Amino acid sequence: MIIDCHGHYTTAPEAHTEWRQAQLAGSSPDYPYFSDDQLRETVAGNQLRMMAERGIDMTIFSPRASAMAHHLGDDKISAEWARVCNDLIKRVADLYPEQFVGVCQLPQSPGVPIGNSVDELERCVLELGFVGCNLNPDPSGGHWTARPLTDRSWYPLYEKMIELDVPAMIHVSGSDNPNFHAIGAHYINADTTAFMQFLQGDLFGDLPELRLVIPHGGGAVPYHWGRYRGLADMLGKPPLTEHIMRNVHFDTCVYHQPGIDLLFGVVDHDNLLFGSEMIGAVRGIDPTTGHYFDDTRRYVDALDIPDRDKVFEHNVRRVYPRLDAQLTARGL
Amino acid sequence: MIIDCHGHYTTAPEAHTEWRQAQLAGSSPDYPYFSDDQLRETVAGNQLRMMAERGIDMTIFSPRASAMAHHLGDDKISAEWARVCNDLIKRVADLYPEQFVGVCQLPQSPGVPIGNSVDELERCVLELGFVGCNLNPDPSGGHWTARPLTDRSWYPLYEKMIELDVPAMIHVSGSDNPNFHAIGAHYINADTTAFMQFLQGDLFGDLPELRLVIPHGGGAVPYHWGRYRGLADMLGKPPLTEHIMRNVHFDTCVYHQPGIDLLFGVVDHDNLLFGSEMIGAVRGIDPTTGHYFDDTRRYVDALDIPDRDKVFEHNVRRVYPRLDAQLTARGL
Repeated sequence: MIIDCHGHYTTAPEAHTEWRQAQLAGSSPDYPYFSDDQLRETVAGNQLRMMAERGIDMTIFSPRASAMAHHLGDDKISAEWARVCNDLIKRVADLYPEQFVGVCQLPQSPGVPIGNSVDELERCVLELGFVGCNLNPDPSGGHWTARPLTDRSWYPLYEKMIELDVPAMIHVSGSDNPNFHAIGAHYINADTTAFMQFLQGDLFGDLPELRLVIPHGGGAVPYHWGRYRGLADMLGKPPLTEHIMRNVHFDTCVYHQPGIDLLFGVVDHDNLLFGSEMIGAVRGIDPTTGHYFDDTRRYVDALDIPDRDKVFEHNVRRVYPRLDAQLTARGL
Repeated sequence: MIIDCHGHYTTAPEAHTEWRQAQLAGSSPDYPYFSDDQLRETVAGNQLRMMAERGIDMTIFSPRASAMAHHLGDDKISAEWARVCNDLIKRVADLYPEQFVGVCQLPQSPGVPIGNSVDELERCVLELGFVGCNLNPDPSGGHWTARPLTDRSWYPLYEKMIELDVPAMIHVSGSDNPNFHAIGAHYINADTTAFMQFLQGDLFGDLPELRLVIPHGGGAVPYHWGRYRGLADMLGKPPLTEHIMRNVHFDTCVYHQPGIDLLFGVVDHDNLLFGSEMIGAVRGIDPTTGHYFDDTRRYVDALDIPDRDKVFEHNVRRVYPRLDAQLTARGL
């Protein structure tokens, strides 16, 4: 089977987004009611249609990343927003349990201890059946005021993740800094930044059971793999394969063939998870191929490799064991 | 001939660095005297030896990027520091005029108008014979408090660059933000960020004669070339080739063969300038090749391309016309 590890609910009902605007404006209307049919409509012609067209069986589905916007409002606002976003994901996953499984947004807020996110993670995993979370390394939205991900202040979340046996995808949200276009700079920079923080620190020496996913093909890292191998050496760290790549995985959200070729050429295939972030950052059709930029299955299919199944399925099930358990229970 | 467009004086005399420390500490000792022999010693066994070993004829040489540290001290401190750094580059270039040509550090300072850097640029170009400058898009050192490079506040420098017919390399300095390792994250992020700013804006529609170099192989951009082509389309911009790549060039500071292969595979060779940043970010030997990571000539030599000379020489002379004029005057 083919599992897409990186999908966001970018097509959520408009009233959901309007409620958020009202929330941020300080009014507190009741959260809108959505019928099952209304929710089906938001994905039937979008994610589900494309998954069918592309032959993708399942998507690990989370709230829209750019809309998490942890920098807006305070921690109560973020907690309320995370909860309704996660509940909405749960409803979609319940409508299409064979196609979607949930990953949660955390109620992060700048300057607020990450421990405040533990309850929502636990609720989503234990009560809603979610299999992971998205962790924002910069809840300030492009001002980068938090501590690096290797700092002990993040450990309460990591320890809960390990206890629950779920991974996190490191994923920033919108940018409040005019220097950084969200999906063109902030996302990619955050991926690169997170990797370099792991290189500098010893997070996985401390927490060897922690599993993380760096999206967008690892940011700039595979392209500069020689630089990072060399920096590990200069900083007196073990090789990347030992120091970082036992715990960190990259998805395949790289939107052209040469990028995917490089990714698979330099990174061990055990560290790669199929992902497309479809109907996400880049929605158009590549005029040089006639296909959607984000149809990453085509790029992976075009590779001459013997172990595509690892990337399409087995690695994803290994990194998300709660998903694996659900699939196994269904005889898959 | 082979011209390396990206070299910093990372081996400057220790007394030069000590003077900087004293300057920042508030004492103002006289700038130390260096004999010609002292200066020769700093490069003879370093850059000059490696250039000879690698068959590189000339290096476009600028003050150490990580030491510019525009975020330390005020604008007067930065002005004084830029001046002594540039004067030192001039002395090295005068000692080895066939091997080094100068590019200047600008006296930027957070919140201070870029117009304050115009005089030093003019001095370096007209009096010292320099052929370009390094422009820091984030003088705050990792806090990113300046306006994007497309903002009109940067135009006074751009207009002077056009008048003098010199390009700028977009190059950040050290990081004052613990999230960003300088050479492992901040440098690469800045490259990616600058490119995306150009994509969002219309700087080159306004200033079609402006020429810029994005170092480190363009940051993450070539690896995500499909993403950026798709984003240009989504933002209603012309194709990258028309919108950005008439004015922007990438160097070849990518420290492994697969990265260089990708760079040359996706970016028009007219936009590539040979660079190594030798004795810079990554100084070790790659155990997988037995050669220095930063020996980028090897990677370029290994390519099966017909137009290597463009990248080694002709593009560099086109982007740095004042260097071209100096070489032409010497019959080269």
